[in-house]
Amino acid sequence: MSLSNLGTEQLQEKDRSYVFHPSTYLAKHSRGETPNRIMAGAEGVYIWDTEGRKSLDGFGGLYCVNMGYGCAEIAEAIAQQARELPFAHVYAGQGTKPVALLAEAIVEYFGQNMRRVFFGLSGSDANETNIKLVWYYHNILGLPQKKKIISRLRGYHGSGLVTGSLTGLPFFHDHFDLPLEIVRHTTTPHYYRQAQDGESEEAFSKRCADELEALILAEGPETVGAFIGEPVLGTGGIIPPPQGYWTAIQAVLDKYNILLIADEVVCGFDRTGEKFGSHLYGMRPDIVTVAKGLSSAYLPISGSIIGERVWSVLEQGTEKHGALGHGWTYSGHTLCAAAALANLDVLKKKNILEHVRDVGPYWQEQMKAKLDGHPIVGEVRGVGILSAVELMRDPKQRIPFEPNLQVGVRAAATLLENGVIGRAMPHADTIGFAPPLIIKRNEIDIIVDATARTVDATYRSLKAEGVL
Amino acid sequence: MSLSNLGTEQLQEKDRSYVFHPSTYLAKHSRGETPNRIMAGAEGVYIWDTEGRKSLDGFGGLYCVNMGYGCAEIAEAIAQQARELPFAHVYAGQGTKPVALLAEAIVEYFGQNMRRVFFGLSGSDANETNIKLVWYYHNILGLPQKKKIISRLRGYHGSGLVTGSLTGLPFFHDHFDLPLEIVRHTTTPHYYRQAQDGESEEAFSKRCADELEALILAEGPETVGAFIGEPVLGTGGIIPPPQGYWTAIQAVLDKYNILLIADEVVCGFDRTGEKFGSHLYGMRPDIVTVAKGLSSAYLPISGSIIGERVWSVLEQGTEKHGALGHGWTYSGHTLCAAAALANLDVLKKKNILEHVRDVGPYWQEQMKAKLDGHPIVGEVRGVGILSAVELMRDPKQRIPFEPNLQVGVRAAATLLENGVIGRAMPHADTIGFAPPLIIKRNEIDIIVDATARTVDATYRSLKAEGVL
Repeated sequence: MSLSNLGTEQLQEKDRSYVFHPSTYLAKHSRGETPNRIMAGAEGVYIWDTEGRKSLDGFGGLYCVNMGYGCAEIAEAIAQQARELPFAHVYAGQGTKPVALLAEAIVEYFGQNMRRVFFGLSGSDANETNIKLVWYYHNILGLPQKKKIISRLRGYHGSGLVTGSLTGLPFFHDHFDLPLEIVRHTTTPHYYRQAQDGESEEAFSKRCADELEALILAEGPETVGAFIGEPVLGTGGIIPPPQGYWTAIQAVLDKYNILLIADEVVCGFDRTGEKFGSHLYGMRPDIVTVAKGLSSAYLPISGSIIGERVWSVLEQGTEKHGALGHGWTYSGHTLCAAAALANLDVLKKKNILEHVRDVGPYWQEQMKAKLDGHPIVGEVRGVGILSAVELMRDPKQRIPFEPNLQVGVRAAATLLENGVIGRAMPHADTIGFAPPLIIKRNEIDIIVDATARTVDATYRSLKAEGVL
Repeated sequence: MSLSNLGTEQLQEKDRSYVFHPSTYLAKHSRGETPNRIMAGAEGVYIWDTEGRKSLDGFGGLYCVNMGYGCAEIAEAIAQQARELPFAHVYAGQGTKPVALLAEAIVEYFGQNMRRVFFGLSGSDANETNIKLVWYYHNILGLPQKKKIISRLRGYHGSGLVTGSLTGLPFFHDHFDLPLEIVRHTTTPHYYRQAQDGESEEAFSKRCADELEALILAEGPETVGAFIGEPVLGTGGIIPPPQGYWTAIQAVLDKYNILLIADEVVCGFDRTGEKFGSHLYGMRPDIVTVAKGLSSAYLPISGSIIGERVWSVLEQGTEKHGALGHGWTYSGHTLCAAAALANLDVLKKKNILEHVRDVGPYWQEQMKAKLDGHPIVGEVRGVGILSAVELMRDPKQRIPFEPNLQVGVRAAATLLENGVIGRAMPHADTIGFAPPLIIKRNEIDIIVDATARTVDATYRSLKAEGVL
């Protein structure tokens, strides 16, 4: 490209003039009133922009660069496959080596009674596929009414019309006429914020399950097709479930013949210290959504892992009706599959699972040690290499800051000035962390220290402003 | 990978055991009763499998490998970017060089009054974005009822729940409870099949527009938000519009304040002999969907090009409501954007537009010369490097073959034996062609000759079987 020597300002100007950014205040961006870093390079857990400003990426892109930046094995696999065969479609039974090997690797990594993988590009499109398959499944079984999908308030399952409806966050609904009618939302399993006085975690989990059952009965169990949930709530605030939650939920689903879709886009591939969040919490999903960590974001690829219960009915459906009419041109994209295969190779060779089991607890302990009990810290929570700090006006009384103060957004900006990228989650004043899984103890220390300094500074400035 | 020396049979076994293929008869595939080529390499317009069987890819993957296989410039751009920075998200105003340059290149290539590009991964997700934006647009303008989307029977706009509803083909609806309520379908503009006796193309176009207007009036113009259409119908049968069609349609849309989404996934980037199908037919779209030819499928990337009319309202919306809550993790994926940028560079350097204007008419003439008037050929049609041959029991009386004879599928299988990949389109007995745009005259001759031999052989065998 002849334009490769453009300076930062020229690139920013082009960016502001031509790019429609996700989740952005569009008019402000056009006017140059938003931060507009042009990212240029990255290595390990660090990423830097065109002006050489380096940050420790405490959110791993968007919880996705699990093997870290600059991983030569993945880059080389991509370079090689790009020359050999970048793309061959996999419609109508045509295949490629990377796709066959990757599907096998995924099914084996999940274990249980998983059977096949349908490949997509994003977590959103994988969940779209999943809902289509749930509908087809119940149609083939002669239960055509079982079509409603139950999700949780503050769940995140994508940003499309249907998948954005599954998502239980107003930011993704407002002004878009979502959620659509086919989706219902149930209780957020957030013990710190939702539990009643004196209620134990188990009792709270039981109540969540009871509320789910009441919803199912109100809708009519014959109309409910599936329940979808992230093992650990992600974009809704990085919230691990309370004790006994998934066991209680699973029992209700079993009782009413409702399929379970485990959305493992964030939790999958070792992030929690188990291979999948489902394993950590004893979930027995019928369909599993994977993306992000599947390829560490080096290339876009997602998958719907289909368990025996659903697969056998899909096969039966094609015996009756012929080929199943679903697919994306780039389903099983050759080059993306090769990248994911290399990524899973790295994950195994580096024994990332053991590494997360080693440093994950250290991270959680350090976060708690440095931040628990701070006057504006409501909760320090997490599991594996997934963590959040929720800021509150009054942590004991569980009184949040007024939303217009944008305390979470301000804190994330201060954290960035302190050299660390954390994410202001879109609900409540929560700073989230999900760095590359290859992170080392000294890098964890950097994040924890910067976060502690940031929270202190935020506290002091709120006091100085008379907010506190 | 230690498994890299697996033989064809081992790969096929893995494929059948683990891969859930799109548009496939699942049970038969598991049992080994479907063709299961494992594709291994490709160069120019040729692709070959693990056993070295080479085919001229007359469908360019799925109308997508426009710059042909083995393009070193694109592969090298991918290899370089993979090492430099494979991924940085573009949420909340963060950017990268490839994304800024690509957005500029797309906006400039389309011209007219286009303003910004929202990046996705597939044509399906881009159309999903488009519908969300149409809803947001009308909400901001205070017209919250304007939410229905009108598409055409036999249109193809994706395979999701909403985008599959836009698609007007039963294969993508049956057993999935589609189309959803928000979509309505109008007349297929297929002159050969739909025109009344003695009706001119212009009169037929006028009738299509009248039928659209009648539908709008029946639904209530205040409830119709947008019309979506491919300049040339693609998966529905590769059907160029009749004379005057888009002018007539556009007038109706203007009359009722209905947005026009041009789905240029197949037609975009020179395939028709103009930069976009919109240019060829004088369409003035408000939103344009691009994918496939944007990257020649080397990596998955799509875009929604947003025109001034919509963009100004989106900006206005964010002034009222703050950041717009929509996005995919892999929106503006760095590495995919770099691949697309290199692809557009190749397209310009090779002057593909002139090339298509040169060989496209040759292709169309040759097809007509060799196939028009054949006893089972109903229509030979196309534009640029996009072509279809529709087989009919009685071409003059326009009587098709009985669907259970699967004449189209049989002919495509024979064509493959003759060394050429053509696609049996999912509706009627039509063989479609959309080879890489770099195709040369002698390669066009190979496709045309093989097609002529195939149609002859199909005719002879149908006679031998007593079908004719």
